Amino acid sequence: MIYFNSDYMAGAHPEVMRRLVDTNSEATVGYGCDQYTARATDLIRKACDAPDARVHLLVGGTQTNATVIDGLLARHEGVLAADSGHINVHEAGAIEATGHKVLTLPHKDGKVNAEDVDRYIRDFYNDDTYEHMVAPGMLYISFPTEYGTIYSLKELEALSEVCHKAGIPLYIDGARLGYGLAAEGNDVTLRDIARLSDVFYIGGTKVGALFGEAVVITNPAVLPHFTPLVKQHGAMLAKGRLLGVQFEALFEDGLYEKISRETVRLAMRLKEGFKAKGFMPFIDSPTNQQFFTLPNILIDRLMKDVGFELWGPRGEKESKVRFVTGWQTTDEDIDGLIRLL
Amino acid sequence: MIYFNSDYMAGAHPEVMRRLVDTNSEATVGYGCDQYTARATDLIRKACDAPDARVHLLVGGTQTNATVIDGLLARHEGVLAADSGHINVHEAGAIEATGHKVLTLPHKDGKVNAEDVDRYIRDFYNDDTYEHMVAPGMLYISFPTEYGTIYSLKELEALSEVCHKAGIPLYIDGARLGYGLAAEGNDVTLRDIARLSDVFYIGGTKVGALFGEAVVITNPAVLPHFTPLVKQHGAMLAKGRLLGVQFEALFEDGLYEKISRETVRLAMRLKEGFKAKGFMPFIDSPTNQQFFTLPNILIDRLMKDVGFELWGPRGEKESKVRFVTGWQTTDEDIDGLIRLL
Amino acid sequence: MIYFNSDYMAGAHPEVMRRLVDTNSEATVGYGCDQYTARATDLIRKACDAPDARVHLLVGGTQTNATVIDGLLARHEGVLAADSGHINVHEAGAIEATGHKVLTLPHKDGKVNAEDVDRYIRDFYNDDTYEHMVAPGMLYISFPTEYGTIYSLKELEALSEVCHKAGIPLYIDGARLGYGLAAEGNDVTLRDIARLSDVFYIGGTKVGALFGEAVVITNPAVLPHFTPLVKQHGAMLAKGRLLGVQFEALFEDGLYEKISRETVRLAMRLKEGFKAKGFMPFIDSPTNQQFFTLPNILIDRLMKDVGFELWGPRGEKESKVRFVTGWQTTDEDIDGLIRLL
Amino acid sequence: MIYFNSDYMAGAHPEVMRRLVDTNSEATVGYGCDQYTARATDLIRKACDAPDARVHLLVGGTQTNATVIDGLLARHEGVLAADSGHINVHEAGAIEATGHKVLTLPHKDGKVNAEDVDRYIRDFYNDDTYEHMVAPGMLYISFPTEYGTIYSLKELEALSEVCHKAGIPLYIDGARLGYGLAAEGNDVTLRDIARLSDVFYIGGTKVGALFGEAVVITNPAVLPHFTPLVKQHGAMLAKGRLLGVQFEALFEDGLYEKISRETVRLAMRLKEGFKAKGFMPFIDSPTNQQFFTLPNILIDRLMKDVGFELWGPRGEKESKVRFVTGWQTTDEDIDGLIRLL
Repeated sequence: MIYFNSDYMAGAHPEVMRRLVDTNSEATVGYGCDQYTARATDLIRKACDAPDARVHLLVGGTQTNATVIDGLLARHEGVLAADSGHINVHEAGAIEATGHKVLTLPHKDGKVNAEDVDRYIRDFYNDDTYEHMVAPGMLYISFPTEYGTIYSLKELEALSEVCHKAGIPLYIDGARLGYGLAAEGNDVTLRDIARLSDVFYIGGTKVGALFGEAVVITNPAVLPHFTPLVKQHGAMLAKGRLLGVQFEALFEDGLYEKISRETVRLAMRLKEGFKAKGFMPFIDSPTNQQFFTLPNILIDRLMKDVGFELWGPRGEKESKVRFVTGWQTTDEDIDGLIRLL
Repeated sequence: MIYFNSDYMAGAHPEVMRRLVDTNSEATVGYGCDQYTARATDLIRKACDAPDARVHLLVGGTQTNATVIDGLLARHEGVLAADSGHINVHEAGAIEATGHKVLTLPHKDGKVNAEDVDRYIRDFYNDDTYEHMVAPGMLYISFPTEYGTIYSLKELEALSEVCHKAGIPLYIDGARLGYGLAAEGNDVTLRDIARLSDVFYIGGTKVGALFGEAVVITNPAVLPHFTPLVKQHGAMLAKGRLLGVQFEALFEDGLYEKISRETVRLAMRLKEGFKAKGFMPFIDSPTNQQFFTLPNILIDRLMKDVGFELWGPRGEKESKVRFVTGWQTTDEDIDGLIRLL
Repeated sequence: MIYFNSDYMAGAHPEVMRRLVDTNSEATVGYGCDQYTARATDLIRKACDAPDARVHLLVGGTQTNATVIDGLLARHEGVLAADSGHINVHEAGAIEATGHKVLTLPHKDGKVNAEDVDRYIRDFYNDDTYEHMVAPGMLYISFPTEYGTIYSLKELEALSEVCHKAGIPLYIDGARLGYGLAAEGNDVTLRDIARLSDVFYIGGTKVGALFGEAVVITNPAVLPHFTPLVKQHGAMLAKGRLLGVQFEALFEDGLYEKISRETVRLAMRLKEGFKAKGFMPFIDSPTNQQFFTLPNILIDRLMKDVGFELWGPRGEKESKVRFVTGWQTTDEDIDGLIRLL
Repeated sequence: MIYFNSDYMAGAHPEVMRRLVDTNSEATVGYGCDQYTARATDLIRKACDAPDARVHLLVGGTQTNATVIDGLLARHEGVLAADSGHINVHEAGAIEATGHKVLTLPHKDGKVNAEDVDRYIRDFYNDDTYEHMVAPGMLYISFPTEYGTIYSLKELEALSEVCHKAGIPLYIDGARLGYGLAAEGNDVTLRDIARLSDVFYIGGTKVGALFGEAVVITNPAVLPHFTPLVKQHGAMLAKGRLLGVQFEALFEDGLYEKISRETVRLAMRLKEGFKAKGFMPFIDSPTNQQFFTLPNILIDRLMKDVGFELWGPRGEKESKVRFVTGWQTTDEDIDGLIRLL
């Protein structure tokens, strides 16, 4: 079997794992107050060119989104997001469980645009009954999106501007941030992400770590008292240094970028392979998630040897599918897949 | 000024007020354990032909919706509703504040249809990732809807069937229930409402009471321990008998129906008056809320003498408006309005 | 029967009721945007000598406490309160339902003292693990307390000082505020309450209104965006002017004080009556709630003709009981009771 | 430095780590649907002699407690717990954040007793106002407790009986379960824990795993739909097999017991060492946490070479301290410590 189901199928990148093994028997204080975490967060601040940012290392994406959003919003506020956004669809109501509504905007290939955000906010305050409605208290976007697409620098700047004009923070879900930054045609840097958002996170789980997401708070005023919130949300790892060790490994010598680039390169090979066989992607993703519409007959045949996922319900004759590459994907995997098409 | 802003502009119907005055100096136990409440809830059970129903009297609509829905849903569930539903738009996130997502369905003139509900539920459980999504745990509809429209008996039966087939309760928001039941062309009775839903409420605030909503739980298994929930939601009136006295007045001699019929009659006169002047309603509501698109020039002129509300933002040349009749509306009010058109 | 069960057994004081009747058929806008509410809140600001205070009229006590406390606290904070406090005991978990812990302090006759508050806060921040614990984010006290007792001005000043030194707001639950202010020996004025707290409420339900509590926000910075919170908590009355009319009546010509004084006077007569028969109060309350330990044999005999409540579980030979006077209590009621002792 | 600060200072037991390394590059499906998790949960069911139990692997203790308790309680219910219980003190309000009150019982060396639980429940339902109070909906205990103490089988049986007589589930927090089971004098087996509770968890983080807690639901009726709740609480690990691999390692050949026994043995040596020098424990814990009152002068001297924690605030002349052993503690560590006393 060759697996393209997701980017969280294997463990950690070997270099990350090596560090965990090397430090395993060492004793450190818990809860992220150790020196590994200190070094990792320093490296991240440097990579972001954000010396005053506060960086917290959490375990997983859903808990990160819920903790950050719960912290950013006042009780009467909700979070603006694409209706396709992960927080709106695939987090089992984690945001609502903290008491906040997800205010949806229509998406285009997973993206929202500044104009829609602006109109939503203006229409809201132009409605005489706005105090009976949920106030838009922040904007959530994902980079890359759930469809693998990325925002251009210009788009991001427009979103940042419209948020800050309205006095609400911009939060970027970077579960697969590395793949977005490594995408061909991408003109956004990690420093741009840090500069344009108030809070974002650098995904580790899907980019070479065993687990772990680095929350970067570039505008600390919007998220005070984050540590007790992390604890309250059950998002604080007792052996916090495990996160520090991993992010130190990822950010010390450019490993995060290296993993991202290589994974995207293989995804592009995969896409070209499909296209060469006449199967066009239904969304043109430049990152490690690739989406195609395939005949059911091909899907059934492929599934004997290849792992991948249906994207939505099975159609009558053809269905949408997703293929994902990860740090463990090899050129041989791609070759093998292409041979089977 | 003639007021058509809403149906909660005046106090209580004089007969309701008379009862409150007559019983004012009497001492009774609190929290709805008094004999007035007992008699009122008996009358309601009889009117609903639901001898085993539990009836609770609460103060207002938003708190009623939040308390009932919070009680009906398990923690991992959300409530299906029209995207135009009051709980989704105009309750300031009260449902989400209890931890539950509102799962929206497209509306047609404020109504949802059984087919859409059925498809939502089937699609949900057909999705392999459904445990990562918010489960549809109940259906919320309003009768009449926020647009004044009503469901036919056949439509209600279909919604009830699709819910119960899926094992989820049907809850009907009857903030203006009387006006729906009194509408011309309506073929639904209060007994049908009771028979087809698991929980519903009979709105008092907008139908002649000072305040008060009667929650009728026809399927008590779905909502055990409601009393502490009412208290927890701050929806329990200390002087609970005020609700009992009012609902006794409304349900003793058909006052609720009488108020509803008369209010709807005046709304129909209002509608005919507009139509006679060439202003067609943009939604054909058979109840006490009437919706028109009027030239801004007319709106501005009318507003000097008449109270009514813009329905959404003001347009460039014309805008949508809402006119509402209530127990205090008179034929003279209608005559006066028509003269001004 | 003579009733001393509580102060929410009868309707409204006749003068309050008269105003409701007089204004009943009038049409006003809803949700508290009417002129009655404007006048009532002006009168309250004047009575409090707090011209910049924001005043909101809500329906009941539990919803008021939950809404205010939810608004005052950040997500990681809890509310300090006496373990005997209403929010800790008799609100069915309404505070916790909003996500916040009640942090209990030992009470002395229902009161907390500044020293305990100060020690709690100091100990909290001296604990290295404080970010794993719930931060004390405000202080809740009741005036008078659930045991009918009152704080002296000196005690209140000390509590206010310790809160503000620690940067947390002081909130006073005044469900029976009038009775505290009217108590013999009381040296606290309404202006003191307003001056020393950040938020408090003036109870109407138990002091002559049909229902209603006036939230006075003397420090608006601590409670922005209160209106949508009131809506979200289901605490916004559609016919909001009903609250305005009542509080206007209560605060226009000193009716609130008059009712309070008279009710306390009768409570003192009641207490003296018991004492004269040799039944000493187990708490010396100067307000309208009176607490005695009576032989069960007397309790059983009294209960044939008099309404009152056991205070906790029935004892073997004697039990604690509570007698409460209200606006509807008369000298004849007291005479009748004393004759039965 | 020799570290006795906690049992989460080092990484995983080498055998656990070896397995993680061996399986690292393997691809499996995510979210715990893999074969390692299947085998681990089978092993746990067998160890518990609970073939019908459902077993879920979560990441950390606070999130486990919050998720389980949130799932067990109805909205109007709270959780009974010792006032010293971890959920009441050191989880930053995670339980309240889900909307539920922690109902505290006095503790004796960290333990509650059946009589107190029984009295609480009886008193609650004997109070006429119980629907205005938070209903006791479950019992939380920890084994061993936060003070290192353990319940006897007889005590556990009594607690189980009193809970089940009242119809509420018993939940056991087993963050350090192994150390309780391995304690000298303990007469409780893992099978007893499974038999007497409705839900419990087997702590991995503090007993040799990198992280991970195994929730064992022996009475699945009390906790349906747990998977979406785990997701909603952000407690679902994407690379779920990491938990499976670890618990398989811990439960395959008795590693969990072996680690526990050895860690407790070293704790007993540590205790004897202190006692031999005249320092008596202030709680006689038979597990891996040891508590002493030491002169500040000794504390200051020791802290130069030894890591341990103050237990509460520093006293004037002497202070309470805690020493904890873990899988990484060695006889040399104990020798070294004793030499320093």
